[in-house]
Amino acid sequence: MDPVVGINAVAQGDTVGRKPGKKTEKGKEKKQAGETELSEELRTKALIDGNGPEDATAGAQKLVLKNPKGTRDFEPKQMAVREKVFKTIIDCFKLHGAETIDTPVFELKETLTNKYGEDSKLIYDLADQGGEKLSLRYDLTVPFARYLAMNKITNIKRYHIAKVYRRDQPSTARGRFREFYQCDFDIAGQYDVMTADAEIVRILAEILSKLDIGKFVIKVNHRVVLDAMMEQCGVPARMFRAICSSIDKLDKTPWQEVRNEMVNEKHLDPAVADRIQNYVVLKSQGNAIEFVDQLLRDPLIGQHAGGKEAFEQMKLLLSYCELYGVSDVVSFDLSLARGLDYYTGIIYEAVLQGDALTASTESVGSIAGGGRYDYLVGMFDAKLSKGAKSVPCVGVSIGIERIFAIMEAKMLSSKEKVRTTETEVYVASAQKKLHFERMKLCRELWDAEIKTEQSYKLSPKLLQQLQYCEEYGIPLAIVLGESELQNNVVKLRDVQSRNEEVVPRDKIVEVIKAKLQLINGQSTSSSIATVHA
Amino acid sequence: MDPVVGINAVAQGDTVGRKPGKKTEKGKEKKQAGETELSEELRTKALIDGNGPEDATAGAQKLVLKNPKGTRDFEPKQMAVREKVFKTIIDCFKLHGAETIDTPVFELKETLTNKYGEDSKLIYDLADQGGEKLSLRYDLTVPFARYLAMNKITNIKRYHIAKVYRRDQPSTARGRFREFYQCDFDIAGQYDVMTADAEIVRILAEILSKLDIGKFVIKVNHRVVLDAMMEQCGVPARMFRAICSSIDKLDKTPWQEVRNEMVNEKHLDPAVADRIQNYVVLKSQGNAIEFVDQLLRDPLIGQHAGGKEAFEQMKLLLSYCELYGVSDVVSFDLSLARGLDYYTGIIYEAVLQGDALTASTESVGSIAGGGRYDYLVGMFDAKLSKGAKSVPCVGVSIGIERIFAIMEAKMLSSKEKVRTTETEVYVASAQKKLHFERMKLCRELWDAEIKTEQSYKLSPKLLQQLQYCEEYGIPLAIVLGESELQNNVVKLRDVQSRNEEVVPRDKIVEVIKAKLQLINGQSTSSSIATVHA
Repeated sequence: MDPVVGINAVAQGDTVGRKPGKKTEKGKEKKQAGETELSEELRTKALIDGNGPEDATAGAQKLVLKNPKGTRDFEPKQMAVREKVFKTIIDCFKLHGAETIDTPVFELKETLTNKYGEDSKLIYDLADQGGEKLSLRYDLTVPFARYLAMNKITNIKRYHIAKVYRRDQPSTARGRFREFYQCDFDIAGQYDVMTADAEIVRILAEILSKLDIGKFVIKVNHRVVLDAMMEQCGVPARMFRAICSSIDKLDKTPWQEVRNEMVNEKHLDPAVADRIQNYVVLKSQGNAIEFVDQLLRDPLIGQHAGGKEAFEQMKLLLSYCELYGVSDVVSFDLSLARGLDYYTGIIYEAVLQGDALTASTESVGSIAGGGRYDYLVGMFDAKLSKGAKSVPCVGVSIGIERIFAIMEAKMLSSKEKVRTTETEVYVASAQKKLHFERMKLCRELWDAEIKTEQSYKLSPKLLQQLQYCEEYGIPLAIVLGESELQNNVVKLRDVQSRNEEVVPRDKIVEVIKAKLQLINGQSTSSSIATVHA
Repeated sequence: MDPVVGINAVAQGDTVGRKPGKKTEKGKEKKQAGETELSEELRTKALIDGNGPEDATAGAQKLVLKNPKGTRDFEPKQMAVREKVFKTIIDCFKLHGAETIDTPVFELKETLTNKYGEDSKLIYDLADQGGEKLSLRYDLTVPFARYLAMNKITNIKRYHIAKVYRRDQPSTARGRFREFYQCDFDIAGQYDVMTADAEIVRILAEILSKLDIGKFVIKVNHRVVLDAMMEQCGVPARMFRAICSSIDKLDKTPWQEVRNEMVNEKHLDPAVADRIQNYVVLKSQGNAIEFVDQLLRDPLIGQHAGGKEAFEQMKLLLSYCELYGVSDVVSFDLSLARGLDYYTGIIYEAVLQGDALTASTESVGSIAGGGRYDYLVGMFDAKLSKGAKSVPCVGVSIGIERIFAIMEAKMLSSKEKVRTTETEVYVASAQKKLHFERMKLCRELWDAEIKTEQSYKLSPKLLQQLQYCEEYGIPLAIVLGESELQNNVVKLRDVQSRNEEVVPRDKIVEVIKAKLQLINGQSTSSSIATVHA
C-alpha cells in the first residue's frame, strides 16, 4: 500500500529550525491544482464569515506588534540559560530539604493592601469586570503569608519560584523589568534563635558559589540593631522609618547626599546625622565576631538593652556561619537597612563584587535579599491577640534577572555552544523518498527513549540535514541510503568527528545506547562545585 | 568559644514540618527578660509608625482570607504530583527535539483582539493605570503566533508550559479553573503534507500512555472535510461556523438536541440537518484507512473536490500513524468540530475512555486538543499579501488539570507515599545541646551534595526527630550521642527497617554515598513505560 497515491505532496520548506526569514527554495513553490483549490476555498469561507484571514490581515495594518513595556519573551537560547540557573537554585533548595508550593498570579486586592508602604503604587490591578477586586502579586512573600494563615500552617520550609509584577520604570540595562522571576526560600516556625536564619546564609552562599558568577558578599544586619543605633544617636522614634529609608540608599549614594536628605528634607538634627555617620560606615571585614564585641564596647549603641541582645544574636548567627563554612563571605554591615517594613530581626543582602560580566571592580548591586518577618502571617489572622507572634518566618528572595544577564554574557563569550534541544540522534536520508524508512527508524528510537529528530521534508538534501545536526549540536546522525537498506545496515555518523561506521540495522538501538552512555558520561563527569571551591 | 553565652535561647518549637496548628510544648514558653524586651520594643515602634502588627491586626478583622475565585494554591503534595506530570510531558517533548520559549503573562489587549470569537468575553483585562492597555493571556497559541511574527521566525518546534486565564464559571468537579496550565507543543514551518501533523499524534499518544491514566482515543478530523460535508449536505456557506459550533456539542449532547438547535435556533432546513446526521455519526473503529476509502465512495461527500483532497491527506496521516505505531488509538471522527475559528486543516482531540478515577465506562471528555492553523501568524503581519500562508503551524495543547486530578486520586488510593522533599539523611541527636556537632556534620554532608536536614531546635527529642524521618520518607538518619562522639563514631539508622550500624565518624560520607547509590538504584529500576506497553 502506498499512502502517497493521490496526494500532491508539495515540498515547501526546509529542515526545521529557528532561521528567521529563511526563504523557501525556488522551484519548489509551484503549487498543484488540488492544493490551490483547497486554500482558495478556505479563503472564500473566511471572507464570508467575516473574521478569517482576509479580514484579519486588513485589521493588522494598524496592529502594534510588540510585547508589553517592561516585559520580554525568552527565546530558546535564553530558556536554556534560565533552566540551568533554576536547576542550580532548586537543587540547592532540595539539598536543604525544602518542599515547594504555588499560589495564583493574582490575589484579592485587599490581601496586598498595607504590606508594601509607598511601593503599593507599583501594584498592577485587574480591571473591574464584575466580581472580586484583584491585583497581580507584587512579591511571593505576602502570598506565602496568606497561604500559611489560610491553611493554619505553623511550620514549613518551602521554596517558590515564580514571576512577580511591578509597574516600575523598566531598565533593561539594570535588569529591571515589570515582569520578573523571584526565587524565594523561607522557613516558617517557632525555632531556636538564629538556627534557621543561619541556614539561609548557608543556602545563599551555596547558590551564589555554584552559579559561579564572581565574588560576592552577604551583608547582614539586624532591625533591632538599626533601631537601637537610631535611638541612641537621638533620632525621634516617629522618624525611624524615614531615616531608615535614607540609610538604605547608602549602597548607591554618597554619605553627603544621604545626610542632605536627612537634614534638609526630613529635618533631622544635623548633630544626630553626624552621630549616625559614625556607625553606618562600620562593617566587619575580618573576624565578624570580634567586630560585634567592639560594638558591644561602644559607649552609645553598646548600652542599649534591645541592641545588646540583638548583638548577642548576631554573634550566635556568626558562630553558626563559621560552623557552616560560610563566614568568609559574610559581612556585618551597619549601613544595610532594606526598605520593606515587615522585617523584625536579621536582614540579608547579597551583592556581587566586581561584575563577572564587566570585570569592573565596583559593586554591581543587590542580587538577593531577605530577612526575618515574625508578624506578617499574623496580619492575616483576625483572631490573633494583638502583637502576638503567630508564625515567625525568615527567608530570602533571589532576584535572578541580573544573574540571567551575567550567565548569558558568560555563555556568549565562552566558546561553549549553548544547546537548546537535547536531541541525541538525527535520522537523515541520502536519497529521495526514504521517508517511510526514516519514520520506521524514528519510531524504534523513540520507543527506546532515544531523543530523535528527522526532517519534515519527504526528500531533504543530505547537506542540509547534516548542517542541522551541527547547528543544534546533535552528536549522532544515522544516514539511510538505498544500498545500505538492501544490505540491512545503516551508516552511523559521529557529527563532530565526521567519522562514519556501518551498523547492522537490527543492532542500531543497542549501538546508539552504548555510544550515548559514553557521550553522556563525558559531559557530566565535570567535577561538582562545592561552596568556595 | 561558646557563642551561646549571653543569649537566652528560647526553645519554642518543634521539628520543622507542615503540621497545621501544632501547639508549642508547655513549660518551654517561659520567656527570658531580654526576649520580652526585644519584642516589646518592636511592638512599640510599630505602634508609633502606624502600620505595624497592632495596626495590622486591627485591620485584619475585616479581611477576607481566601484566594481569588476559580484559582487555587498548590500544596507540597500536589506540587509533587504536578512536577511528576510535567516531567513526563517535558521529557516527551524533548524526545522529539523541541526547544522551549516563554512569553509574558499579559499581552497588549489588541494582540488578543479578534482571535477567540465570542469567547473574547472571558478575557481578563488589566486596569487602566496609565500606559498600555493589557490583558492576561487566554491561551499560549496567540502569544506564540505574535512571537513568531515579531521575530520573523519561519520555522521552529517549540513547547511552552504556562498558566492561562479565563473568566469562565469555575467548576472544581469538572476541573475547570480561571487560572490553569496548558502544555503546548507546536511545529511551525512550511513542510510536506501531514509529516508534522502525524508527529503531533505520536507525541500525544506517547504522553497519554506514559501518564498511565487509562484508555484514550485521539479523535482526528479535517476542517476541509467538515466544510465539504456541510456544503454537500446543503448548509449555506454563511452558516458554516454556526452549524459547526452545533456539531461541536455532539460529544456531550444527544443528536436530537443538537438538531433542535440547528433547526429551531439557527433555522437550518430540517432536511439538511437530517443529511448531516448521516455523517456525524460516522467514525472509524477498525482500519481507519478503509473507513476513508468508504467515505471517498460516498455519493455526496466523496464528490467534493476540496473534500476529496482532504480525505487523501487524512489517508496519508493515517499511514504515517501506522508507521509511528499509534494507529490503534486514532479514530477519524466526523463529529469532531472544535470551536476555535483559526483551524485550517487537521484537528485533534484526545479523550479518556473510562476514567481511571471513577472506573466509569463513559467518556470523561477532552484532555487535549489542537490542529493546524496556517493563517494565524499572518494576522500579525501587516505587510503580508492578503490570504497568504506566511508561517503554517500545527500543534496540540494539553489541558492538565483533569490529569492532575486523576493522578492525585491514584496516588491517594495507592499505598505509595508521596514524598514532598528529596531529603536523604536526617542528622539527629540523642542528647541535649549537640547542635554544634549536628551543624558540623550537616556542613560535611551538604558539601558532599548529600540532601540533609536537621531540627532547628537546640535540644530536640529523639522520638520527634525519628517521627519526622518517617513522616517525610527520609531513608537514613544519623544519630549523634555523647559516647559515640567520644569514640569517634556515629550511629547510622535505616529508617524503614530501624536497623542501626556504627560507622567511624570520618567514613560517614563515604558510607552514606554507597548506601544511597543502592537505595536510588532500587527506586529507579522500575521499567520505563513505552507507548502501548
